Amino acid sequence: MEREAGVSISYRDAGVDIEAGDAVVAGLRGIGDGRPHPNVIGGLGHFGGFYRLGAQYPGATLVSSIDGVGTKLLVASIAGQLDGIGADLVNHCVNDIAACSAEPLFFLDYYGTGKLDPDDALTVIGGIARACAGLGVALVGGETAEMPGLYRDGDFDLVGAIVGLVDEAKIVDGSAVAIGDVLLGFPSDGLHTNGYSLVRAALSIAHDEISRERLAGPAPFDMTSTLAEALLRPHRSYLAETRALVQSGLARGMAHITGGGLPGNVARVMPDGLAAEIDATAWTPPPLFDYIAEMGHIAVDECFRAFNMGIGYVVAVRPEDVAEAVRLVPDVVEIGRVRHGVPGCQVLHSGLQRSPGE
Amino acid sequence: MEREAGVSISYRDAGVDIEAGDAVVAGLRGIGDGRPHPNVIGGLGHFGGFYRLGAQYPGATLVSSIDGVGTKLLVASIAGQLDGIGADLVNHCVNDIAACSAEPLFFLDYYGTGKLDPDDALTVIGGIARACAGLGVALVGGETAEMPGLYRDGDFDLVGAIVGLVDEAKIVDGSAVAIGDVLLGFPSDGLHTNGYSLVRAALSIAHDEISRERLAGPAPFDMTSTLAEALLRPHRSYLAETRALVQSGLARGMAHITGGGLPGNVARVMPDGLAAEIDATAWTPPPLFDYIAEMGHIAVDECFRAFNMGIGYVVAVRPEDVAEAVRLVPDVVEIGRVRHGVPGCQVLHSGLQRSPGE
Repeated sequence: MEREAGVSISYRDAGVDIEAGDAVVAGLRGIGDGRPHPNVIGGLGHFGGFYRLGAQYPGATLVSSIDGVGTKLLVASIAGQLDGIGADLVNHCVNDIAACSAEPLFFLDYYGTGKLDPDDALTVIGGIARACAGLGVALVGGETAEMPGLYRDGDFDLVGAIVGLVDEAKIVDGSAVAIGDVLLGFPSDGLHTNGYSLVRAALSIAHDEISRERLAGPAPFDMTSTLAEALLRPHRSYLAETRALVQSGLARGMAHITGGGLPGNVARVMPDGLAAEIDATAWTPPPLFDYIAEMGHIAVDECFRAFNMGIGYVVAVRPEDVAEAVRLVPDVVEIGRVRHGVPGCQVLHSGLQRSPGE
Repeated sequence: MEREAGVSISYRDAGVDIEAGDAVVAGLRGIGDGRPHPNVIGGLGHFGGFYRLGAQYPGATLVSSIDGVGTKLLVASIAGQLDGIGADLVNHCVNDIAACSAEPLFFLDYYGTGKLDPDDALTVIGGIARACAGLGVALVGGETAEMPGLYRDGDFDLVGAIVGLVDEAKIVDGSAVAIGDVLLGFPSDGLHTNGYSLVRAALSIAHDEISRERLAGPAPFDMTSTLAEALLRPHRSYLAETRALVQSGLARGMAHITGGGLPGNVARVMPDGLAAEIDATAWTPPPLFDYIAEMGHIAVDECFRAFNMGIGYVVAVRPEDVAEAVRLVPDVVEIGRVRHGVPGCQVLHSGLQRSPGE
């Protein structure tokens, strides 16, 4: 993927400043008296927030998360294909709290727009309702906000909040991860909901007729689908898979591969003194990722930080449990190990570098 | 307020189409198999969604809501005064679930923007953190999303989700409201978070130097504050007041006065066959509302649908409980009664019509 010639696009060039985001997170840590709320378990940085319901309901721990689908919205709007966005939002949120071993209970959505198009809103919110129903999650609330002047005409933003439940004694949060644990990767169904600002820059997708035509045409890397279908394939839910590994007691740490990619997200569940080492030659990233990297001349490190590269979820299990995990979730791939080291996640990807023209 | 001459601005002229929103809500009712989720209590339309935690935790009922602060964001951005927006968001959400008699537990925020300004984000999210801490609510999660292309430069949207708890046997949802009940109104602290698209149209507030200068100058109706301060006064929390009336068993129905104003929101807690009748001569709307109505030539009916008109919360109590309610919450005003009638809320405001020049 990596090219020596050409202009390389990074996520920052595409307008997304990950360091500015980190500065906000660091600044927020300084607010307040520094004492955690007595009902909160753990700090910020996990895939969901843990809240102990209290002495009246022993063990009951609520796990929640709020998120959007990023500028996948823009690609969907330009392509005129809003059908999958609702599932994107729901599955993204469900996967986040499933990484905290929670069973999802209920969902709330927010749809903000400059000028409300009832058909678009119904397509999107209907998709949310169906995705929730398919997972047994109750859609208990929503807000449709019309805010002329804030959004560009025809554009909208979409936010989802999810609440789940776990027994405090059964929380899987990565703290049990140990040296030698095997990292199992679950295949993704495409880009899921991350990296779209970079994709739009790499493929020059904008609100224009040329973009619409290209999106409606065949995907150059997969002649069985249009480019729009390939880019917009909905975020997959891993709830059934994580549930199987949690209920069987095999899961020791789980990471949902979202913004930050494999290195950024697997690192979130590594205890102090432990590092994940991922061998990216263990699987073949789908050609979609190759295509985007080539079109945008995106460095391979940048690709692994911006995209899931074909792995949407990672679960750490003990070496002796790998066979049983594979029996429960047959399509997992062994992609790495937990080692001693500076806390983090290193992705070894030299095998992916290819010579020009290959 | 009502004028015969001049061009009258309605909420629809200002770009907000309440009927389009209603069409979306109606369309959503047709999605799914029509059977409610077994853990959900009641339907859509209340100020929060009720979710029964289940047989393992008898009585535990979670109440949740998601919301934004509308285009108050734009006025705050133009004025360069983002300090109060966090409290606006938190208090709006807390008031919503307090109207369902829930104690707030935790909060999540979403900050979406085109280009992340860390100082702005810290001001806003810091305000959220302080407002939560002041009410004992845990801020358990948040998302800062940078989405180039979706928002205008410098603009952002803000969404909050809140979860609270109530014992199912103690839910106050308006179903106990009966004929003859007295409606007590709680004063608002200004516009709260509704009607800002209409305000911007009426006062011609835009992203320009003239608007910034006017906002920084004295409020024509209140020489002790700038126009920006008067327009941006944060949404008041009614949690202490509602808690007092709920714990004492006096509250039979509670309405948070948000979009839709007194008629739209008080109607939400009227049981079948009962109507609220509000006498708007019982209190004097603060001069802020007069000023906006005059500047925008806004019809008085429209004002009552778009703005809170000085009443931010309404609680229904039995006539014999009024004295005790006033003792617990001294600044309430008796503003109406519950009558037989077509379900809804009628606001009698003829006393507010004034002749031109008055």
